[in-house]
Order: sequence, then structure tokens, then C-alpha cells
Amino acid sequence: MTAGGMSRLSPGDTIGVLGSGQLGRMLAIAAARLGLKTHIYCPESGPALDVSVARTRAAYDDDVALSAFAASVKVVTYEFENVPAHTAEFLAARLPVHPNPFALETAQDRLVEKTFINGLGIATAPFVAVDNVADLREALARLGQPAILKTRRMGYDGKGQAMIRAGGDLAAAWVAIGARPAILEGFVPFVREVSVVAARGRDGAFAAFDLNENEHANHILSVTRAPANVAPDTARQAVEIAKKIADALDYVGVIAVELFLVIENGAEKLVVNEIAPRVHNSGHWTIDGADTSQFEQHVRAVCGWPLGSPKIRGLVEMRNLIGDDVHDWPKLLAEPGAYVHLYGKHEARPGRKMGHVTRVAMPKTRG
Amino acid sequence: MTAGGMSRLSPGDTIGVLGSGQLGRMLAIAAARLGLKTHIYCPESGPALDVSVARTRAAYDDDVALSAFAASVKVVTYEFENVPAHTAEFLAARLPVHPNPFALETAQDRLVEKTFINGLGIATAPFVAVDNVADLREALARLGQPAILKTRRMGYDGKGQAMIRAGGDLAAAWVAIGARPAILEGFVPFVREVSVVAARGRDGAFAAFDLNENEHANHILSVTRAPANVAPDTARQAVEIAKKIADALDYVGVIAVELFLVIENGAEKLVVNEIAPRVHNSGHWTIDGADTSQFEQHVRAVCGWPLGSPKIRGLVEMRNLIGDDVHDWPKLLAEPGAYVHLYGKHEARPGRKMGHVTRVAMPKTRG
Repeated sequence: MTAGGMSRLSPGDTIGVLGSGQLGRMLAIAAARLGLKTHIYCPESGPALDVSVARTRAAYDDDVALSAFAASVKVVTYEFENVPAHTAEFLAARLPVHPNPFALETAQDRLVEKTFINGLGIATAPFVAVDNVADLREALARLGQPAILKTRRMGYDGKGQAMIRAGGDLAAAWVAIGARPAILEGFVPFVREVSVVAARGRDGAFAAFDLNENEHANHILSVTRAPANVAPDTARQAVEIAKKIADALDYVGVIAVELFLVIENGAEKLVVNEIAPRVHNSGHWTIDGADTSQFEQHVRAVCGWPLGSPKIRGLVEMRNLIGDDVHDWPKLLAEPGAYVHLYGKHEARPGRKMGHVTRVAMPKTRG
Repeated sequence: MTAGGMSRLSPGDTIGVLGSGQLGRMLAIAAARLGLKTHIYCPESGPALDVSVARTRAAYDDDVALSAFAASVKVVTYEFENVPAHTAEFLAARLPVHPNPFALETAQDRLVEKTFINGLGIATAPFVAVDNVADLREALARLGQPAILKTRRMGYDGKGQAMIRAGGDLAAAWVAIGARPAILEGFVPFVREVSVVAARGRDGAFAAFDLNENEHANHILSVTRAPANVAPDTARQAVEIAKKIADALDYVGVIAVELFLVIENGAEKLVVNEIAPRVHNSGHWTIDGADTSQFEQHVRAVCGWPLGSPKIRGLVEMRNLIGDDVHDWPKLLAEPGAYVHLYGKHEARPGRKMGHVTRVAMPKTRG
């Protein structure tokens, strides 16, 4: 079967998910609500395995295991963007993979990603490819300081990044990121970080959740609030940007677009930071705060089902429980109206996402 | 360990659930959201197995399997009231079982149940124990016609019941219910069926969801609406009745109390029909329509955790998808704001509960 021969899934069918983290776990729970089964494929143990019908523990380059996995599911999706290209292409030759390998490969490489986005006429931070310290010196001369050196691949939560300030040690920065193919990004003097979480169906239908406003701590998402505190026109533009990107990628599933909000000549302006070809931490509030969760929305999209209503239920705040934060669970469970989610991870290591809590404030009635 | 030595569970711990149906499935999903694991014990396959970490397929009188199950979990609960008394007592001697075996045994037998409820000063339908056709004749003379003959045990969704009208064939009715120990219930001329779904914590805390109004078709729940269309004082009385019963049973977990609403001398009056010592179909709307679902509430209670807020989010309607109804799933998924739940059952047999759909109408804002 080729990707062209895809047909709509039915309740009772099985979705294959690459990756076993909390995103896969919440996808599996959403799939279960809709009568679908989940088969998790991953090299390592993880919390998604606890709620899946079938589990394959194998390497991403194990073609025998991948073949058996492909034969056991109706569609493949993934919970993280660092799925090796070989894995995605091997599977896509056998059955539908959503989002498609082109979207995955575009999002995996910061240089490819930013080039692609600029090609759509959408602003990003200025950037220059850097393959060695000499490149880095030249790039700095062009972009000025401060600037951020980022590996092209495999970066997340601030990993593989180094801020370079005036007089900084370039060779040290190059070693700090692992001396790997990189880009230098010019610093964007943003006033706020926002993100669009949206879904695109197999039929091209597009539905965005309300714009998120994100606060990070130590490069890790800390708090998301929705709707973001931006001008209505800015929120509309953000959704248009996400739609343009999703359409250009022929995207199916939930996509997240992270943006910087900049004030330029007194007006709000959006600059794309990066895209995530998957459900996203800043969309976790949708489980409790929207008509349809991002996880159900992703399941609907990859199954060829109609997208659900993304309507928000009130003013929403989602707070990650990072590391030891999770030990507050008894207090959080006792808070009326707090929606507590714990991911079932064994050890609360520093920086590890252990759960989240969502609070929804209902709009006041007038009268 | 005895039931007296129970301690609060922690995230990562495992809850044992007897039964593998849709109620067990939704309990397992709620437990997963809170970082808990679920071990399902059941003689037969069922949809709860798809979302559980561990599964034991064994008979309810298999003491070896029960011992291993008890050793692998921190607390035991169940999704249906027909757990054999031996099973509950065997487990309760080893670890906490919630709700306790006394509650289970009281709810399992209509004669015991009604006697218990009347003993609390709470009205039920009039009833007489019936052990043979002669008893039945005598009972009919006392209660009048129509009346309903019901097996004392194992009845649900109208099974094990026979309506007896004037001139009816008593021997045929006795055979129809399996010639088993039974009760005859006097007919209650109710105007509406309502139910309380509420939770009682280990500490005695009590939290009721809004009163449900239930419509049945062919003895199976068809539609639940909440809040029920009754006088505020009637709703309060219903909750008081449920609390009185739960307190008297030293109940821990979610309990459902089904009641008839009767109009007597122009005033609303409540008559208990039966109690269910478990999460209940009429509480399914709480997943999408309340701050805390009945499933999460049950998990919180049996874990020794604080109860969540039972606050309703609007005017709610829950409609069961029975048998072929489930084939409407594509239409339901396309309906904005409809919350679709499918249980992952293979075959849509007539009368089988395949899923449900919840709709929530937000209260109008004034102004």
C-alpha cells in the first residue's frame, strides 16, 4: 500500500505512534476515548507504554521491527520531531505517515526550516549557516551581537544552543554545541513569546486553537496562557502564518508554530522562531480548556476524520510541573477546579516534565 | 496488611480493577491522567484491557490468581456490582477494597438493599420477598397490580424482570425470571427517573454532581440530562438521601442512587429505586461537563486523595450509543462541540452500549 491509497480509519483500528513520552501518552489516551487502539514504537521505555494496546521496543533503524510495526497499524504518526529520516521514509513507503516525511525533515533542520519559512514570505530571525569557527566569526560580523548559535539538528529545551555576547569566546561556543553543523541566529528583541497550535485535516481543513502566550524558565516552557494578550489583528496574522506553513507542507495533524512578538515602530510584528511537527506543550491546556483537545484533534486529522471544534472555554493558564514541582501534587489535587495531569514518570529529575496543571477562569457574565 | 492499615496512594502506584468493560476503561483512562497505573482483573476480554498496564485473565474464584493480583496493586476497586462475595472478601483480607464488601453485598441483593434503605428511613417501592409461585400470588394480593417481579441478584438493564399485569400468568412470570429468589415490587407511578452520582472520600468528605434526569428505552439508559428538571428542594433531598446511604455503608468511591420522582398531593417526592456501588452510566457527562469526571472522582476517593470539584459547566445532555447507533460516528464527529466517546467494542450487538455522546450548552450570559 502506498500513501496515495490511504483511507479513513474506523473505530477499532490501530494508530502507530513513534515515541513513548508524555505526548505519546496523551495521544494514546485521546485515541482510546475515540475507540481507537495505539501501538507505540520506541527504542526506550516511557510513559506512553502504560496506556497502549501494543508496544514494540526496537531501534529506529531496525527494518524488521519497522516492517512488523507497519503491518500492524493503519497509520503512523510521531510525538517528536527527531524521528530519523530513514524511519519515516521506510514507513511512508508502506502506509500513510502523518505528518508527512517532508514536514518532518523540514522541521528537523533549523537551516532547512528557516529557509523554507522565508521562502513563503514569512519573517524569521536573521540567520547564517555555520560549519566551523571561521564561519561563526564571519556570521557574527554580519548579524551583530548578541546572537545565538544553535545546532541545525536535535536541539530542544535549550539543548545545543549557546548565546554569544560581545567579546565572547567563539571557539568555546563552537565546542559547547558539540562542534556540529549549526546556524547563527541574530537576536530578536521580542517582548513576548507566542505560539499557534493548529490542525490540518487530510482534506485541507484547518482549525487553530486560540493563540498561546508562553513563558520559559531555563529554556523550558513554564507557563502558557490563552488567549494571548495581543491585538486581535496580530492573533489573526499568527493563525494565517501557521496556515500558510501547514498548507505549504501539505501537513496533516497538529502543528505548532512558535513566534516572537516584536514591537516595531509602535506596532506588533510577528517573527517565526520554529515549528514543531507534532502536538505541543503549549497546547496542553486544550485538554481541559477547549471543546476538542490538541491530542484528539491530531488523532482526528491523522485518521482522516473531521476536525473538532477548537473553541476555548475561558481564560486558560497551563503550568508545567518540572522536576520537583511534581511533589506539590497533593496541594494541586486539593485545589478546586485545578486540572491536574501527571505523566507517570518514575523519577523527578531536574528539568524533566513530570506533569502539568491547567486552570480555566470562566468569562464573567454581564448583568 | 489489613484494610485498617491503608495508606494514601502515590502517583506511579497501581490500582486494581475487577472487570474489563467500558466503566473499567474510563476508570483506567482517568487513572492514567493522574499518573497512576491500572491492573485489570477479569475472566473475559473487554475494552478496559486496551488502556491498562497489567492484565490478569482469570476466574473470580481463582485464589492463586487473586493472590498474585492483590500483591501487585495498592488498592482494589470494581466496575460492576456482581463481583462474587468470595472475591471481594478474599481481597479485602489482603488489601483495601473500595467500596467495601459490605456496600457491595448490600447492593447485590435487591431484598437486602431495600431493607437496608428502608432501615435508614428512606422510601423505596413497596416490596415483598418471593421464593416461589405461591409467594408471588400472596405478594400480588398485598401490593396490587401492576407489579414487577425481579430476581434478587444479577439483574441489570431490565434482565431478570417481569411486569405482572392484572390477569397475568404468574407461573410464566416466575419461569421468565429463571425461577430464582426474587422480590415483587409494587408499581411506582413515577413522573420522572432521576439519579444522584456522588463520591465519598476515605475521610468522609462527600461531593455530589448535579442531579441527573434519565430516560430509558427498552430498560436501557438512553439519555441523561443534568441538572434535572426538579424543584431545588427536591434536588437537595436527593443528595441528602445519597449521603445518608453512603455514610451508612462507610462508602469510599463513587456511588449512584437511582430514584423515582413521584407527585403526591401536588408535591414532588423521591423514592429510591436502587443503588449502584460504582461509577454509573448517568454520570458519563461529567467527563466533559464537570470540573472533575466521575471516573477521576472515583480514582481520587479510592486512592485516599481529596475529592475534586463536581461543578457542572452548563446544561448537559448525554446520549448513549446503543448497538447500531454507533454507526453514526462520522456524523457525530462532524458535529461542532459534540463530545464523542467510543468504547472500542468489536461488535455492535443490539442493546450493547458502544459509546456515548455528550453535549454541553453554556448558560446564556445576561446583558
